Amino acid sequence: MGAPFVEITHSEEFSASHRLHNARWTAAKNRRIYGICNNLHGHNYAVQVTVRGTLDSSSGMVMNLTDLMTAMRARLIDPVDHKSLDRDVPFLRGKVTTAENVVVAFWTELEPALRKFKTCRLHRIRLYESRNNFVDYLGPDPSI
Amino acid sequence: MGAPFVEITHSEEFSASHRLHNARWTAAKNRRIYGICNNLHGHNYAVQVTVRGTLDSSSGMVMNLTDLMTAMRARLIDPVDHKSLDRDVPFLRGKVTTAENVVVAFWTELEPALRKFKTCRLHRIRLYESRNNFVDYLGPDPSI
Amino acid sequence: MGAPFVEITHSEEFSASHRLHNARWTAAKNRRIYGICNNLHGHNYAVQVTVRGTLDSSSGMVMNLTDLMTAMRARLIDPVDHKSLDRDVPFLRGKVTTAENVVVAFWTELEPALRKFKTCRLHRIRLYESRNNFVDYLGPDPSI
Amino acid sequence: MGAPFVEITHSEEFSASHRLHNARWTAAKNRRIYGICNNLHGHNYAVQVTVRGTLDSSSGMVMNLTDLMTAMRARLIDPVDHKSLDRDVPFLRGKVTTAENVVVAFWTELEPALRKFKTCRLHRIRLYESRNNFVDYLGPDPSI
Amino acid sequence: MGAPFVEITHSEEFSASHRLHNARWTAAKNRRIYGICNNLHGHNYAVQVTVRGTLDSSSGMVMNLTDLMTAMRARLIDPVDHKSLDRDVPFLRGKVTTAENVVVAFWTELEPALRKFKTCRLHRIRLYESRNNFVDYLGPDPSI
Amino acid sequence: MGAPFVEITHSEEFSASHRLHNARWTAAKNRRIYGICNNLHGHNYAVQVTVRGTLDSSSGMVMNLTDLMTAMRARLIDPVDHKSLDRDVPFLRGKVTTAENVVVAFWTELEPALRKFKTCRLHRIRLYESRNNFVDYLGPDPSI
Repeated sequence: MGAPFVEITHSEEFSASHRLHNARWTAAKNRRIYGICNNLHGHNYAVQVTVRGTLDSSSGMVMNLTDLMTAMRARLIDPVDHKSLDRDVPFLRGKVTTAENVVVAFWTELEPALRKFKTCRLHRIRLYESRNNFVDYLGPDPSI
Repeated sequence: MGAPFVEITHSEEFSASHRLHNARWTAAKNRRIYGICNNLHGHNYAVQVTVRGTLDSSSGMVMNLTDLMTAMRARLIDPVDHKSLDRDVPFLRGKVTTAENVVVAFWTELEPALRKFKTCRLHRIRLYESRNNFVDYLGPDPSI
Repeated sequence: MGAPFVEITHSEEFSASHRLHNARWTAAKNRRIYGICNNLHGHNYAVQVTVRGTLDSSSGMVMNLTDLMTAMRARLIDPVDHKSLDRDVPFLRGKVTTAENVVVAFWTELEPALRKFKTCRLHRIRLYESRNNFVDYLGPDPSI
Repeated sequence: MGAPFVEITHSEEFSASHRLHNARWTAAKNRRIYGICNNLHGHNYAVQVTVRGTLDSSSGMVMNLTDLMTAMRARLIDPVDHKSLDRDVPFLRGKVTTAENVVVAFWTELEPALRKFKTCRLHRIRLYESRNNFVDYLGPDPSI
Repeated sequence: MGAPFVEITHSEEFSASHRLHNARWTAAKNRRIYGICNNLHGHNYAVQVTVRGTLDSSSGMVMNLTDLMTAMRARLIDPVDHKSLDRDVPFLRGKVTTAENVVVAFWTELEPALRKFKTCRLHRIRLYESRNNFVDYLGPDPSI
Repeated sequence: MGAPFVEITHSEEFSASHRLHNARWTAAKNRRIYGICNNLHGHNYAVQVTVRGTLDSSSGMVMNLTDLMTAMRARLIDPVDHKSLDRDVPFLRGKVTTAENVVVAFWTELEPALRKFKTCRLHRIRLYESRNNFVDYLGPDPSI
């Protein structure tokens, strides 16, 4: 039996404004599809990143939590915290800022920064838009 | 590569009374198996429904959250909120109202209402009975 | 300057059923005043008890938390946990089991059990009926 | 001894965008005083309203929670939920939308709507801007 | 179709001290790898155990929650609660007490105690070290 | 009528180890008074600081939250986070590290650092030792 697989998860929070609006639709269609989310509003978001890998027998860690936290802050939190998701974030430009689109964009931003950690890989990103709504993305090719 | 799979989860809460009691058992056996849960008592329950599907590239959504919320309230919450699970809920009639039985019954109620949303399907229902106890059901045929 | 006043607060939880129903009113009036709370339902309640007193310079405590916990469990939690507030609790007999009535009855039950602790006194009881609703009682004669 | 005083508290949540910006200051001063809060961003706010009064011996209530909830939604939540606090809310026009200014404005909006409830009065409004930051206002003339 | 598979999860909490320190490393390397976690400190931990199995049609349960709670307290909580993870816990002796190592050790302790429950098996242990950091272990041979 | 009084509260968290032990008592007495808290263990603490003052009509603030956060981190959090409260913290030396003693020591550390903010003053410090236990200190001379 090899080294055990363990998943580690770290959470960070950010506050941002957004509205759901598709520029190719009429105002009426935007209102019909997105309802009050078509208005400018905002959230305290939370993002949970899960990394999956084998336990290093010396350190007892899958990945140094400090490295994960540093990567999350540099790639995900700094670009969006206290910002407008619709206007201020290069990697969201041209996208409707639904939680689904944001979580997929977060994967695209974060995954390359984690490749250098050879014994683990990005497993899931969960984005909470509010206490009662969240989305999960397991990547373009989810597997064990 | 096709459109990415994303899971969206919405939570609702309800308050209900119940007791665990199997009418085919003696009082002594009910007490022995169910302990103090054999007494009439109640909970603030929370139910989290997860839907899994492909991202629609126009709307940026897997499923309109309003549709999910509407289905959950009509099929799950309205029949049980501020009710006795043992006496007032048609779809629980004759069942011992364990969290396990309730979550399976919730699946049976909700799943048909979500079939019309072609690009996604019901993936999991989680039912919290209290802060420290919850159950998950992934359906009669769970798969990726 | 004398020993500093400090407040200590301990929380316990219980699960119970109840309905709001005044036996001297008609069914219609009960429904009109209490709405859906007139139905049998239940909650995971939380009760927070705050004791205020002077710091003992040897122990560094206002009151031994174990004593507070023991008193709360014996006087408050054991009589109501996994019970029907309307039928099973002697000190609630004949009362409409609103959160207000329950919190006042809790004070009457608990306060005498704390009198033997000479350097502190019961200051406040808070009762959560749900995440979004709670009541506070500061006793028949609140003062600093 | 008269009827006991009890406080009841109800919470509601809303999502809104805002930025801290004083139109009479230079951009540099706004940035220096408000830091990153000078950027357009947003929050999931929670507002807790506490009403204090005497227990009605028939109903067992200080105030009907449904009436409190209705007043809070009509006066506070509907005007701000899924809105820009800076542009969309008449009672915040011309104010810097700090949590302090919002909570005082909330008092001014809500207090008159509660005057018709003769046995109780508005005691405190607490506004959470995030999990780690909240403000409390006890009115222009706080007293027991 | 056979009896449905359901997962049940129960949580317990404990308070413990620890420091991350590998006795085979220099002080400098310990400091470089573990940072401030190399200092003696502590946490309120939470451990969530998930058991997966088929619903018993008589009891309506996958496993009696009382049995799960009893096993968790005897095997996991009692040995670690109000203890030093580094000095007081036989099953952690000689291990660096990272969350990853603790969760794997918890599995080794708990899993044999659950084998007598024939219709279910241990599925996952989640260990929260703080609100923002947790680890998951699905066992040496995770599968559906 | 003057400027309204508003209270602002900011929370920070820290992780620390401690044990309750009075060096002037026998081991038996320490065990009898403090129970399992006499063992070395630890917590994720949260500290909530409340400042009370008048609203500045230009800034719309009672006190700049950044200044409060900076003072809390410098005076309270940095000295205790990832530390042993019993051995590593100068301002707790020789004290039994009960929550009551810690919260009073926190007041003594923080209050002088807030005196330069002329329009407000420290009103309360709340220290959570766990989800179910917290203490409040309103200072040596609490008043409105």
